[in-house]
Amino acid sequence: MKITAIHSASVPIASGMRNAYIDFSKMTASVVAVVTDARRNGKRIVGYGFNSNGRYAQCGLLAERFIPRVMSADPRSLLNEDGTNLDPHRIWSCMMANEKPGGHGERSVAVGVVDMAVWDAVAKIEGKPLYRLLAGRYNGGAVDDRVFVYAAGGYYYPGKDVGLLQDEMRRYLDMGYTVVKMKIGGESLAADLRRIEAVIQVVGDGSRVAVDANGRFDLKTAIEYAEAIRRYGLFWYEEAGDPLDFALQAKLAAHYDGAMATGENLFSMQDARNLIRYGGMRPDRDWLQFDCALSYGLVEYLRTLAMIEESGWSSRRCIPHGGHQMSLNIAAGLGLGGNESYPDVFQPFGGFADTTPVENGYVHMPDAPGVGFEAKANLYKVMKAIAI
Amino acid sequence: MKITAIHSASVPIASGMRNAYIDFSKMTASVVAVVTDARRNGKRIVGYGFNSNGRYAQCGLLAERFIPRVMSADPRSLLNEDGTNLDPHRIWSCMMANEKPGGHGERSVAVGVVDMAVWDAVAKIEGKPLYRLLAGRYNGGAVDDRVFVYAAGGYYYPGKDVGLLQDEMRRYLDMGYTVVKMKIGGESLAADLRRIEAVIQVVGDGSRVAVDANGRFDLKTAIEYAEAIRRYGLFWYEEAGDPLDFALQAKLAAHYDGAMATGENLFSMQDARNLIRYGGMRPDRDWLQFDCALSYGLVEYLRTLAMIEESGWSSRRCIPHGGHQMSLNIAAGLGLGGNESYPDVFQPFGGFADTTPVENGYVHMPDAPGVGFEAKANLYKVMKAIAI
Repeated sequence: MKITAIHSASVPIASGMRNAYIDFSKMTASVVAVVTDARRNGKRIVGYGFNSNGRYAQCGLLAERFIPRVMSADPRSLLNEDGTNLDPHRIWSCMMANEKPGGHGERSVAVGVVDMAVWDAVAKIEGKPLYRLLAGRYNGGAVDDRVFVYAAGGYYYPGKDVGLLQDEMRRYLDMGYTVVKMKIGGESLAADLRRIEAVIQVVGDGSRVAVDANGRFDLKTAIEYAEAIRRYGLFWYEEAGDPLDFALQAKLAAHYDGAMATGENLFSMQDARNLIRYGGMRPDRDWLQFDCALSYGLVEYLRTLAMIEESGWSSRRCIPHGGHQMSLNIAAGLGLGGNESYPDVFQPFGGFADTTPVENGYVHMPDAPGVGFEAKANLYKVMKAIAI
Repeated sequence: MKITAIHSASVPIASGMRNAYIDFSKMTASVVAVVTDARRNGKRIVGYGFNSNGRYAQCGLLAERFIPRVMSADPRSLLNEDGTNLDPHRIWSCMMANEKPGGHGERSVAVGVVDMAVWDAVAKIEGKPLYRLLAGRYNGGAVDDRVFVYAAGGYYYPGKDVGLLQDEMRRYLDMGYTVVKMKIGGESLAADLRRIEAVIQVVGDGSRVAVDANGRFDLKTAIEYAEAIRRYGLFWYEEAGDPLDFALQAKLAAHYDGAMATGENLFSMQDARNLIRYGGMRPDRDWLQFDCALSYGLVEYLRTLAMIEESGWSSRRCIPHGGHQMSLNIAAGLGLGGNESYPDVFQPFGGFADTTPVENGYVHMPDAPGVGFEAKANLYKVMKAIAI
């Protein structure tokens, strides 16, 4: 058994929107196909992976370092003990050979994309949905048959007024979501408060609205927003300041007793550990958003989960960034608190299996082997094209 | 005035050596040439840059994001107020447009390489050595006419015994160095102590020997080494643990009252700030090794210097990693404590101008305009070849 090829392509996920920090006019994502010589029902098994939005495709790093390392390794060194399947941990170590510690960005995305494809292949080779494989290996077999998801949107677009924002949120409710997220920090505080109140009017209660500043605020502005939005009782207040400014996050907690969320821009166990150590995050109410697809994949995410549990956090406090089926599988198989979802944007990567609509804020898990990409037609079409 | 082209190439700097964390068998570096339409003495002005060792060439990121952003910008938006020269700060902001915060690795190298080339061009356009330009702009004109440098070597090679290690260190003394650095953590503590004692025997005193664990140790091993080497009174004990494990660094300080050094694997002001906030580093004796060529260049390094000074640190406590002429200029122009030097390795990138030998542990500054690459023949040959 061996990997016979790894293909990689860059796919545009550009759009006209922006958050408080960047616009998405040139956004791309990497898609990879890990082709094996294993067969099931007469067809070769191919694992697929991609990176979630925000950090661009990683074609260069994949071609320069990570794919060549895997392809030049002794194939047996990448298999499990009895040689019956790929070993994601061994493949991970192979990719990270001769990489210095620290500096966790970009390469964490490249490795995360390949890692996703490897887990997809591993579950397909076992003929199981990935969430069942993960539950069996790491969680005593316990599976959540449905996962909480929230609708992430509310971006700034040129010409988008409060009425269009409300229309967007109504659509999410019609799709079955109960909690929605919107961007803040791209306009004045007064304008953002009008936007938040307009969204609360549509969804019925502040506890169903999360707001996301995308790391834009300094401490003073973060506190001004905290004091202004406290009265709404929001679902969470996300990434107020720079993701590495743990002191800002810790100080902000003294001004905001509602839930806060952060972590999508921390790309290693070590960076996540520093948030836990220094960020003043509260295990009884706050949320951790580390996204394996940007952060060296599930092999590293398992280390991150072990670290947070040693630090007194439940895995239920994790609701990953990224809105992808990989984190959905991890949520169902390892007992996370839920998953992000992009009903409107980053297509074909946003959203889950075509057969599992969102119902009352939850999505049920499909029964397809692997991550489940084949059950999402528009995504599978893009993936299949690169595996020729 | 404008940039007419930015060329990029990957250059191998492979060697058979290793430190405690990686081997260098496939190491590469990026070289870029920023070509302008400015002329001096009839020749067009070209700025050059490269990244220091350890983090690989960044051809993909340069080609995919950073060079296209600069080349597609309105050329006037990249100039200073009166349009007479490039503005490194504006070019930096152009490169970092639509980049999310956090995740500082790889792209920090790509940006650092271009930033170095831009400063080289800017100083050449002004007809000054870069260190004089920096002293004039940021340091009240004060220039150090010589800079402390130490010889970094003592790597592990297959078949390299203690005798060869001593020969290497003798060579460095013969070249004019007074302080040498060697790797530790790649063998047992007992073997490393024999190596350290052998080197002390050659250089005459422990205060002339620095040791570098390259982030390999857990806390227990870091403390074992600390307690075993304390008696030598070494120049410094470098990067004992993971570069992001600030708690390890802080706890280690309780077991080691000699000088410690770290920071070469922290690639942004924010990461450096976390070391200062949480790492327990002592401004009266410890050393900061942030390397602009891996860390978004001098534009970001200026932010880092401002941050450490606000935190009660002197710029004299900075001795950057990387052994390149860029940091040498920063050291002379902005009053750092010195610079690393690789007399033996990473050629043609290691070392300084051919005309300025090391004397009694210091190197004098040459008078060539720009960073001074033209005064280092073997390096300039490589650079010139990509600017055709």
